[in-house]
Amino acid sequence: MTRASKEWQHFLRQNREKDIADLLEFIRIPSVSAQPALLPEVHRAARWVANRLKVAGIADAEVLDTGAHPVVFGSWMGAGNHKPTVMIYGHFDVQPAEPIELWTTPPFEPEIRDGKIYGRGATDDKGNMLAPILTVEALLSTTGRLPVNVKFLFEGQEEIGSPDMPKFVEQNVDRLACDMIFSADGLQWGPEQPQVVEALKGIVAFELVVRGPHSDQHSGLHGGGIANPAMGLAQLLASMKSSEGLVTINGFYDDVIPLTDQDRQEIARVPYNDADYLAETGAPATGGEPGYSTRERLWARPTLDVNGLTSGWQGDGGKTVLPAEATAKLTCRLVAAQHPGRILDVIRNHVVAHCPPGLSADVKRNNSWGDPFQVPRGHLSTELAAEVLEEVYGRTPYRTRLGGSISVMTTLQHATGVHATMFGFAHSDENLHAPNEFFRLDAFDRSMLAYGLLLEKVGCCHID
Amino acid sequence: MTRASKEWQHFLRQNREKDIADLLEFIRIPSVSAQPALLPEVHRAARWVANRLKVAGIADAEVLDTGAHPVVFGSWMGAGNHKPTVMIYGHFDVQPAEPIELWTTPPFEPEIRDGKIYGRGATDDKGNMLAPILTVEALLSTTGRLPVNVKFLFEGQEEIGSPDMPKFVEQNVDRLACDMIFSADGLQWGPEQPQVVEALKGIVAFELVVRGPHSDQHSGLHGGGIANPAMGLAQLLASMKSSEGLVTINGFYDDVIPLTDQDRQEIARVPYNDADYLAETGAPATGGEPGYSTRERLWARPTLDVNGLTSGWQGDGGKTVLPAEATAKLTCRLVAAQHPGRILDVIRNHVVAHCPPGLSADVKRNNSWGDPFQVPRGHLSTELAAEVLEEVYGRTPYRTRLGGSISVMTTLQHATGVHATMFGFAHSDENLHAPNEFFRLDAFDRSMLAYGLLLEKVGCCHID
Repeated sequence: MTRASKEWQHFLRQNREKDIADLLEFIRIPSVSAQPALLPEVHRAARWVANRLKVAGIADAEVLDTGAHPVVFGSWMGAGNHKPTVMIYGHFDVQPAEPIELWTTPPFEPEIRDGKIYGRGATDDKGNMLAPILTVEALLSTTGRLPVNVKFLFEGQEEIGSPDMPKFVEQNVDRLACDMIFSADGLQWGPEQPQVVEALKGIVAFELVVRGPHSDQHSGLHGGGIANPAMGLAQLLASMKSSEGLVTINGFYDDVIPLTDQDRQEIARVPYNDADYLAETGAPATGGEPGYSTRERLWARPTLDVNGLTSGWQGDGGKTVLPAEATAKLTCRLVAAQHPGRILDVIRNHVVAHCPPGLSADVKRNNSWGDPFQVPRGHLSTELAAEVLEEVYGRTPYRTRLGGSISVMTTLQHATGVHATMFGFAHSDENLHAPNEFFRLDAFDRSMLAYGLLLEKVGCCHID
Repeated sequence: MTRASKEWQHFLRQNREKDIADLLEFIRIPSVSAQPALLPEVHRAARWVANRLKVAGIADAEVLDTGAHPVVFGSWMGAGNHKPTVMIYGHFDVQPAEPIELWTTPPFEPEIRDGKIYGRGATDDKGNMLAPILTVEALLSTTGRLPVNVKFLFEGQEEIGSPDMPKFVEQNVDRLACDMIFSADGLQWGPEQPQVVEALKGIVAFELVVRGPHSDQHSGLHGGGIANPAMGLAQLLASMKSSEGLVTINGFYDDVIPLTDQDRQEIARVPYNDADYLAETGAPATGGEPGYSTRERLWARPTLDVNGLTSGWQGDGGKTVLPAEATAKLTCRLVAAQHPGRILDVIRNHVVAHCPPGLSADVKRNNSWGDPFQVPRGHLSTELAAEVLEEVYGRTPYRTRLGGSISVMTTLQHATGVHATMFGFAHSDENLHAPNEFFRLDAFDRSMLAYGLLLEKVGCCHID
């Protein structure tokens, strides 16, 4: 295969300076989706992407409206009905750059230092999403065709949680029909070590509000007479989790698919060091649900975490108030085959059963809501990706999971029936979402090579 | 006695218009201690009080420095060594008037409507503290002398927690030496029903801080790997109190003097209605430490209340953060013979023993700190006050207690060895600390009469 690929690889090497210049130009557009004043820049980035797709040979590339933040879509369907259709996903919006003063060079004036491109969005996700466009350009320029049918779906709202994407995807199901999806928004384990991400956690977020008196009361005049909502909230929260970390809500674990021996072996194969992990987080000790390793809990067991507490007096010093109410914000991270709605149900049942006397308690859904994502064992696009990664890195990829949730993975899965495969080349040390974000130039090279090899490999598959 | 008192009572009736005019003038001084810009007005009020004392015949009345907010002190010691010395306490500073727009007439432009003087400080405490001055003036003007030795101690910082008073009292122990203390800063049960307050609760305030990772972490990437400080705080708080309301901290109740049958009978004698109390607070039910009535818990049992909770994300919606720390502010209200320092010790011991694994917890003292106050049974000045109240109201006073804490009561007790007796004529419906504060003119009349009768009654006591 390597011999057959020579021509497009040569094209990429020849165009390297130009490709890097394109990435620098792309990064110069401050397409921050979270800042309304920069919405025109998100649109400018969309036009830039659509134009770059056209230049690459994707003639139908266009900007599509979704509400505020547009989508760019383009396709090349010349491989015919018997070749698979691959959709490549990425996003051209970026995180806010603040605090600006912590950047060595301005976030939207990218600079190359020591083989790294510094700038907001360099790795998340502009460098990563540009790579497959350039690969397709190389293939089309040198061979006049692609080994498979290709669709590109790039969004401009990933960094604000993709609020309009579920609706857009639903309304464009036919346009998005495909056989495999690769997400160019993803990480490798390290600069020398690839990974295949086999699962992401789902999420359900809610607020728990405990109410007592109609307004804040004097804690001296009423303490002992009526129940305290802040203490009641604490008691209710404490009833949900043991001090070891077992979630004690009836039914919480009911739908969890137990880890198999093979699952546990795969997880154990990935190096883990407790001291390193404690140094990274600064926590005094690891801990959680009994019976599982730290990595198993992080990757493959559901969790319940308090994200915030609010009640009564929060200023300096004390104030002798018995608060009228107390609120906790919580999220549960879910694993296959849990469902956010079912988890919310068991939580509501628990709260009804455990609300301390003299108080009332409500559970209110918050925004985050997503099913867990888990690739079936032996899933084709994931296995092909693993083969390519082994080829370009010279190392067998780790089989990993993520405790986080990426909603577009389940959005696309629900709409197209396809489990997406993460195929991005960022690294966790590249200051994603932080000052001095950067992308390694050799990762840029590697990602273009990997996408070319991947499309060729998929091209060997026939659809009947 | 009534016959012998005629002359000074006649004087008070004759001077009623002038006395009311004086109170209106006093209220017009916006002596808000909490607002630094109004500190000159607190000083102006002090000079007004000292001058009014001089006019009344207290020749040595003077303004004394304590730091920012002054004290006014004056004495009449002409009754001789064999007569008791009575100290009368009150305060000339007032609460802030905000929100101004909720006042029917401006807070510092007092107006009389329906037999009530409306204005900030009318009842708390300007009307109440002016009454004994006017009574002493009536006695001195008509009889040339007082039945007892009298000292006046008026402070200008009560509404900000009397921060400089402990030091002032300590430095002026000789000057404040006396046999009985009456506080003109207090309430009667109702316009037709007097009370004698036999106990106030002590207080100790603290913050409980639970810490985990060195900074907020992503709840998806780290949830399940390390303990959550907000959940740990909830578990620690829940370990301190049963859902019924029993404080479960080892040693918390050790120093409590149990209620006697007589105590419980006295408390039960005071009318209480659960429905009224629930309507007042808006709580769905009363509740607390098992084995005690609501009134017993409110008045005579120690409490532990959460005053505030703070952790992680508190804005709108959700944020997937595993917080670095979580803080609760708490106060305990103490009854005789508990001590704030000892309670803080048992709390610290409890926190060390119950901090969930993977977290650290600290207990930090907050400002409020005070011993419980309880008048010994048969305490002379309290019994004399009860007799006078029965005389002026025609009803036996209720024997009550307060769940709140009034630090000056214990400050004076520690310095002089004297248990003060509350002898004020405010009523809880008079909007103390709220817009449209008022003082009943008939309570003003009654308080002058009561102070006159009280001084006469005390004058029948001899000191050997």
